[in-house]
Amino acid sequence: MSPKRLEAFSDGVLAIIITIMVLELRPPAGAGFDGLRDVVAKLLAYLLSFVLVGIYWNNHHHLFRLVERIDGGVMWSNMALLFCLSLVPFATAWFGEHPGKQAPIISYVVVQLSCALSYTAMTLTMLRIHPPDGLLATAIGHDFKGKLSVGLYLSAIPLSLASPWVGVALIVTVAVLWLVPDRRVARTLATKDAGPGAGVSAGP
Amino acid sequence: MSPKRLEAFSDGVLAIIITIMVLELRPPAGAGFDGLRDVVAKLLAYLLSFVLVGIYWNNHHHLFRLVERIDGGVMWSNMALLFCLSLVPFATAWFGEHPGKQAPIISYVVVQLSCALSYTAMTLTMLRIHPPDGLLATAIGHDFKGKLSVGLYLSAIPLSLASPWVGVALIVTVAVLWLVPDRRVARTLATKDAGPGAGVSAGP
Amino acid sequence: MSPKRLEAFSDGVLAIIITIMVLELRPPAGAGFDGLRDVVAKLLAYLLSFVLVGIYWNNHHHLFRLVERIDGGVMWSNMALLFCLSLVPFATAWFGEHPGKQAPIISYVVVQLSCALSYTAMTLTMLRIHPPDGLLATAIGHDFKGKLSVGLYLSAIPLSLASPWVGVALIVTVAVLWLVPDRRVARTLATKDAGPGAGVSAGP
Amino acid sequence: MSPKRLEAFSDGVLAIIITIMVLELRPPAGAGFDGLRDVVAKLLAYLLSFVLVGIYWNNHHHLFRLVERIDGGVMWSNMALLFCLSLVPFATAWFGEHPGKQAPIISYVVVQLSCALSYTAMTLTMLRIHPPDGLLATAIGHDFKGKLSVGLYLSAIPLSLASPWVGVALIVTVAVLWLVPDRRVARTLATKDAGPGAGVSAGP
Repeated sequence: MSPKRLEAFSDGVLAIIITIMVLELRPPAGAGFDGLRDVVAKLLAYLLSFVLVGIYWNNHHHLFRLVERIDGGVMWSNMALLFCLSLVPFATAWFGEHPGKQAPIISYVVVQLSCALSYTAMTLTMLRIHPPDGLLATAIGHDFKGKLSVGLYLSAIPLSLASPWVGVALIVTVAVLWLVPDRRVARTLATKDAGPGAGVSAGP
Repeated sequence: MSPKRLEAFSDGVLAIIITIMVLELRPPAGAGFDGLRDVVAKLLAYLLSFVLVGIYWNNHHHLFRLVERIDGGVMWSNMALLFCLSLVPFATAWFGEHPGKQAPIISYVVVQLSCALSYTAMTLTMLRIHPPDGLLATAIGHDFKGKLSVGLYLSAIPLSLASPWVGVALIVTVAVLWLVPDRRVARTLATKDAGPGAGVSAGP
Repeated sequence: MSPKRLEAFSDGVLAIIITIMVLELRPPAGAGFDGLRDVVAKLLAYLLSFVLVGIYWNNHHHLFRLVERIDGGVMWSNMALLFCLSLVPFATAWFGEHPGKQAPIISYVVVQLSCALSYTAMTLTMLRIHPPDGLLATAIGHDFKGKLSVGLYLSAIPLSLASPWVGVALIVTVAVLWLVPDRRVARTLATKDAGPGAGVSAGP
Repeated sequence: MSPKRLEAFSDGVLAIIITIMVLELRPPAGAGFDGLRDVVAKLLAYLLSFVLVGIYWNNHHHLFRLVERIDGGVMWSNMALLFCLSLVPFATAWFGEHPGKQAPIISYVVVQLSCALSYTAMTLTMLRIHPPDGLLATAIGHDFKGKLSVGLYLSAIPLSLASPWVGVALIVTVAVLWLVPDRRVARTLATKDAGPGAGVSAGP
């Protein structure tokens, strides 16, 4: 089974997921600037989700450059990741409509957590059919960032019960964590071309 | 006529079909957890449809790896399949809004049945222009799974009149039937690379 | 300028156009079979548009197999075609909601006419930068079907004023005209591989 | 990092952005021609946005033909451009619903300005990793059109306060500016094939 068409299909689904979120930004009813006030929270929620899905696309892209073969397990674990990511627009819409409210933020975190866990599951099904000392295994490595992200999401659930804004802060932290260029990756990139795959992992 | 662009177009349509279903998951009106209760049935209906469309994508992908040429008949039978699959979001939305009600479930089964039949029709138009002892013919074979799926859908229609949940159970059975890895496929895979096409058939 | 990316972009837009039409098929409010009655007209309107857009995709696909180069003129005439085609979902929605009413049917015909004319305009901008005795020129030829389609659309406008159903019949005629396999094309196909391009023209 | 998949992903997102705008064109409530009157303004707003996004696609396409390598900076500046462009459907919907009103037009200009600036930012991140005397640097050059567009957008903001229609006129001017074939580009095209990239710049 060749990874090419799976990659193209995933790109298509990711492009749709990242774009349909904008359909939630309804134009204000009136024609005055004050109508934009209600849009601001939704716009920020959309921006956050855009960045998080963008990070997944980026990591997915790097990961698949190192994948040499796929099987039914990889195919379906990739499908599971796409399913979880497809729930992001739903969670974003609720979160953007009720900024700072407990239930929407916890739901948002749970969706992001499911994405991170399914991404990890996908890398594990990939490792099973790749050599343990190959490029893919080296690149995934200990997956520190992935584990840290899962930890941050897990702690965001109870902490959002105390204050929803702490939950928001933790999600933003995860996004920043992945946006900041990785010095280790940059170093690997400088030494060899296969480098960009280094550090690919469980996504945000 | 080359199958490449038909495959890319089909991938695009399938990616859109599988993703727009999530637009039916409207965020609850309130900001409390109890608002999620209404979403659960829709989410499960979406998950079921996601898996069924995913199986079609998977089978379509395998099938096209073995297709050497296409003609107008294949082109239009593929279009017919895409048309039937594009009705899945509609059927899912109705089914998810009225869980356990007769008419929505029977409609859902009818749409799935039309997908399975058009998939079979597509394989038949393909076989017409391929050698009867070629890879494609071998891979499609007796298409036991495809025939079984059609049989299960056909029996689901009258049985849903008795109890809609029996219909749901039969649809889930079809999905599981296709998700469970096929030992025969795995064996073929092990012996030669063309193997993943083995067992491709009428989809769920 | 290479035609490859223009083709891929057009495929993406066409895949979206053909699929978002299904978003108009709203699930009935109730859970009974009688709710489906209102859906029937919309479903038939969707089927008609699906076939017409499918014919464009098919013709576009054949045409681009013979195109050797493109320039800004081709690029923008292709964009104009995509713009006209993107109005099909709108026209379909109105037409499906008011079956047999004058204004929606005439609007539908006008949109289809604009698609046919912009397709013709695109072929003309293509011919300008291709040899007059080349494959593309031969394939487009006198474009009898294209001219006939434009004529049928033009006559459908006044005739719909008399009876909207005559307009519907004429649109269906155009669709059938393009669906019926072209004996001339089949013959060309048999003699050489460049054949599928033969008869490509102004679409429905 | 190879530019191919980034290009394909961007194409997917652009195809979706350019097409979902049509979802705002709701069919009129009644079945009479007078219902179309409200659609006209939305249709014109859609046409304008279609052309502007089309120009971005065109420039993006030319630019990437000259790009030899990308890095994380290019990846994320491309994502920022896609984010800004994804706000165009929102701005178009508001603008089309309230033609000639200040706030929607200024919002529309601000979104277009953000697109132009993020396109410029993307070209700058690209130049950083390409030779200063290479094809890309030559093609981008002084980017006169890009700077002029930014200037026109900037002046459109205060001028729309005086009269919103001046703002509309300035946006249309930018669109025309990019649609009119560039004599310099045509000349470069005639001398060498890398020519189409000449003049690629900050978009509308």
